[in-house]
Amino acid sequence: MSRGEAQLSKEIQMSARSHSPFLSILLLWATTSPLLAQLTETREARPYQEIARQIVTTGLASGIAYEMLHELTAIGPRLSGSAEAAKAVNWAKKKMEVLGFENVRFQPVMVPHWVRGPVEEAYVVNSPSKGHVRVGVCALGGSIATPEDGITAEVVEVRSFEELRDLGEKARGKIIFFNRPMDPSKIRPGDAYDSAVNQRKRGAIEAAKVGAVAALVRSMTMRLDDVPHTGAMSYVDTVPKVPAAAISTIGADFLSGLLKKEEAVTVLLRLSCYTLPDVPSANVIGELIGTEKPNEIVLIGAHLDSWDKGTGAHDDGAGCVHAIEAIRLLKELGLRPKRTIRAVLFMNEENGKRGARRYTARDRPGEKHVAAIYSDAGGFSPRGFAVAADSVTITNTGRWAYVFEPIGADRITRGDVWGDLIPLVDKGVPAIVLRVDEQRYFDYHHSDNDTIDKVNQRELELGAAAMAILAFVLAEEGL
Amino acid sequence: MSRGEAQLSKEIQMSARSHSPFLSILLLWATTSPLLAQLTETREARPYQEIARQIVTTGLASGIAYEMLHELTAIGPRLSGSAEAAKAVNWAKKKMEVLGFENVRFQPVMVPHWVRGPVEEAYVVNSPSKGHVRVGVCALGGSIATPEDGITAEVVEVRSFEELRDLGEKARGKIIFFNRPMDPSKIRPGDAYDSAVNQRKRGAIEAAKVGAVAALVRSMTMRLDDVPHTGAMSYVDTVPKVPAAAISTIGADFLSGLLKKEEAVTVLLRLSCYTLPDVPSANVIGELIGTEKPNEIVLIGAHLDSWDKGTGAHDDGAGCVHAIEAIRLLKELGLRPKRTIRAVLFMNEENGKRGARRYTARDRPGEKHVAAIYSDAGGFSPRGFAVAADSVTITNTGRWAYVFEPIGADRITRGDVWGDLIPLVDKGVPAIVLRVDEQRYFDYHHSDNDTIDKVNQRELELGAAAMAILAFVLAEEGL
Repeated sequence: MSRGEAQLSKEIQMSARSHSPFLSILLLWATTSPLLAQLTETREARPYQEIARQIVTTGLASGIAYEMLHELTAIGPRLSGSAEAAKAVNWAKKKMEVLGFENVRFQPVMVPHWVRGPVEEAYVVNSPSKGHVRVGVCALGGSIATPEDGITAEVVEVRSFEELRDLGEKARGKIIFFNRPMDPSKIRPGDAYDSAVNQRKRGAIEAAKVGAVAALVRSMTMRLDDVPHTGAMSYVDTVPKVPAAAISTIGADFLSGLLKKEEAVTVLLRLSCYTLPDVPSANVIGELIGTEKPNEIVLIGAHLDSWDKGTGAHDDGAGCVHAIEAIRLLKELGLRPKRTIRAVLFMNEENGKRGARRYTARDRPGEKHVAAIYSDAGGFSPRGFAVAADSVTITNTGRWAYVFEPIGADRITRGDVWGDLIPLVDKGVPAIVLRVDEQRYFDYHHSDNDTIDKVNQRELELGAAAMAILAFVLAEEGL
Repeated sequence: MSRGEAQLSKEIQMSARSHSPFLSILLLWATTSPLLAQLTETREARPYQEIARQIVTTGLASGIAYEMLHELTAIGPRLSGSAEAAKAVNWAKKKMEVLGFENVRFQPVMVPHWVRGPVEEAYVVNSPSKGHVRVGVCALGGSIATPEDGITAEVVEVRSFEELRDLGEKARGKIIFFNRPMDPSKIRPGDAYDSAVNQRKRGAIEAAKVGAVAALVRSMTMRLDDVPHTGAMSYVDTVPKVPAAAISTIGADFLSGLLKKEEAVTVLLRLSCYTLPDVPSANVIGELIGTEKPNEIVLIGAHLDSWDKGTGAHDDGAGCVHAIEAIRLLKELGLRPKRTIRAVLFMNEENGKRGARRYTARDRPGEKHVAAIYSDAGGFSPRGFAVAADSVTITNTGRWAYVFEPIGADRITRGDVWGDLIPLVDKGVPAIVLRVDEQRYFDYHHSDNDTIDKVNQRELELGAAAMAILAFVLAEEGL
């Protein structure tokens, strides 16, 4: 579009008024319509509207959230146990201190230490028509390595665990290729992810159960590209451990096409990943202490660790920046609420949740959590909040929806929790998740695509503003 | 985040129920809360909800909108009068024919033919500390060229036309550097654009009025990068014509910094653009003819031309695809409404609006437009619709908001019109603009950044679904 400026818009209205009676009439009607009366009423000073406006405009004008995300992602990916995760922990503490947060501290926790290693590759090695063709793969997080010269085996494609079990003896000695795509017809990408992710989480277990030697899993994305997406997988003690890797969606489509054409397709898979002993790490905590009820806590949280692909810009660098920037904005505006707002950057959400469990492991004397607001859906435009609590709490949160209307983040509904919030919900803390425009999330998630150039400065800042507003309102009003 | 799959979510709830009485209570409360009752009620079959669901899921599963956008943008940029614009016109007609649209036709129109030419460059030529430094510029659309060896002149920076006029004689013979940024504190990027775009549209006129020799205008974007953004500029007969170029935001910040340090900064500007005689082109029209009131038209429109930077993927390739895909989806689902839905791809929105004026130039006998739904804000996630009409029409449109709730496009409010809609509004046609998540729009707008890799397949398809749903509902129900 070549939008008109305000001037142009006025000219049009004036021109329309002089040329056509139509707009004159609509302007008259406009002033008397119920919808516009409602809009006008919204513009009256309802509680927190002016404060919300200040938070939003201050954030948008500052650009500080994006600068912080640049600093954090410049450290590199922050997988639990890595040197970069340790650097990120120190960065976050120092950042909170420099910004004048109170009670800035580490909360120590031991975390797992899985290492990808230098080699991850896969080749189709027997296709007469294609020669040796490399397909994009990466080890799933927690996988064991292959032998050094790899695993060479015939590939069998399945779309479900049922289909795998029905293979019976045909699966023995094979590499199982789990190729059920995320269901693109789901409106919410999270639902599409849920429709496929059991292949990644349990593929190695199910493959081993039928005597297979490895698992290759279609990457958890709806985008067609050559970038494999990692993520957590698991083993159980009762079946042998076999290596598991993600294959890019282009690689998966290629392999699937080949399997339709060739009698047999053999793949060589090499992974060099390994697990080291646990490593000391920490949650990072800082506060804006409440004036009247300092022991009542509104937690705003995110996770500081990431996977070791990309730089965890959306997952969850954005969330960390949301939490820090939220308190920074309140401080810049001199907004100190009655209750304490506490930023908690959890360690080890991706492959252990050790940080969140450590946080909730014991009650601090006299302390009460009003709510935990969590950002872990990326630095996209905020749309609202999902509340996992009793319906009174949901309704009480929802009554503040109008405050978020100017930034389009006014959708406050019941929602599920995940990740670090689970231990908090188990303790009875109302959990609130920042909802964002989520359609692009899995384009980047857990992959080399998750870098800061995929984050828009204004969308990131609006997310921080939404967190700041809700945290402030709840810290003033309770829940 | 490492989201839990549905399975995991269930496990958590079960585990929470067994370990804590909290969730058991909330599950009881949940079933009796007014909010959830409302949610449940929403899930009952209200009119068009099931049809909307089918349109959305069919679109998301197809991926056809993105394929069409690939075809269209592969033609190249489609500036009015260019060979690529002519190819796009033919592509659109053929696409509508192949998809089985009815009454597919051209509506001929003469359009301007401005050509950028091979040279556009600018150098800081006298900075002792920096030597000759190239800064990123591009001609504004409609500009005249510089002489072949360029214009070399001292640069004067201003932030407003008032500041320029106050310069008096100091502006004579200079290159005026209009460097007022888009106001980042505006929540809506369109408002930020409106706060700055008069510099681009009228900069050359105002510069010439004070005897300056050229205009350099800060690119209309809030992103800091080295990509200049073009767009329409204008001349008037009463002042001399001087060349006008956009400078990238990085170039603008560099130049501004230099002006603070150096006594004088001289720039060499070379542009080779020119205007050729008008060229025949066309609007492209295709229909889904209504069953009961075929002469009542719900128009769904976009503009087929683009600027000559990038490939006009968001502006307005996305809108063209929205309009075509909307009818395609209705046809695929066998949904033929009572009134006619007419896709109109207008030519020459960017630098003339000749197509839109041609469309409204004469009334077709017996034909009545119910509404014109226009998409020209990019292929981002749909958020709702802005209605430029009388308040009764706004209310009547707004009553269908619930149908768009599942895709988050339920924000239906009064809004301004621009571009191709102005002639329609002048004729009294209710104009409805698809609103999308707009924060990234000006990152790409009118620049080499506007390419298909900036468009997400699912966001594009959701926009098409939103258009299809509203067009179908209005074609069934009237307005």
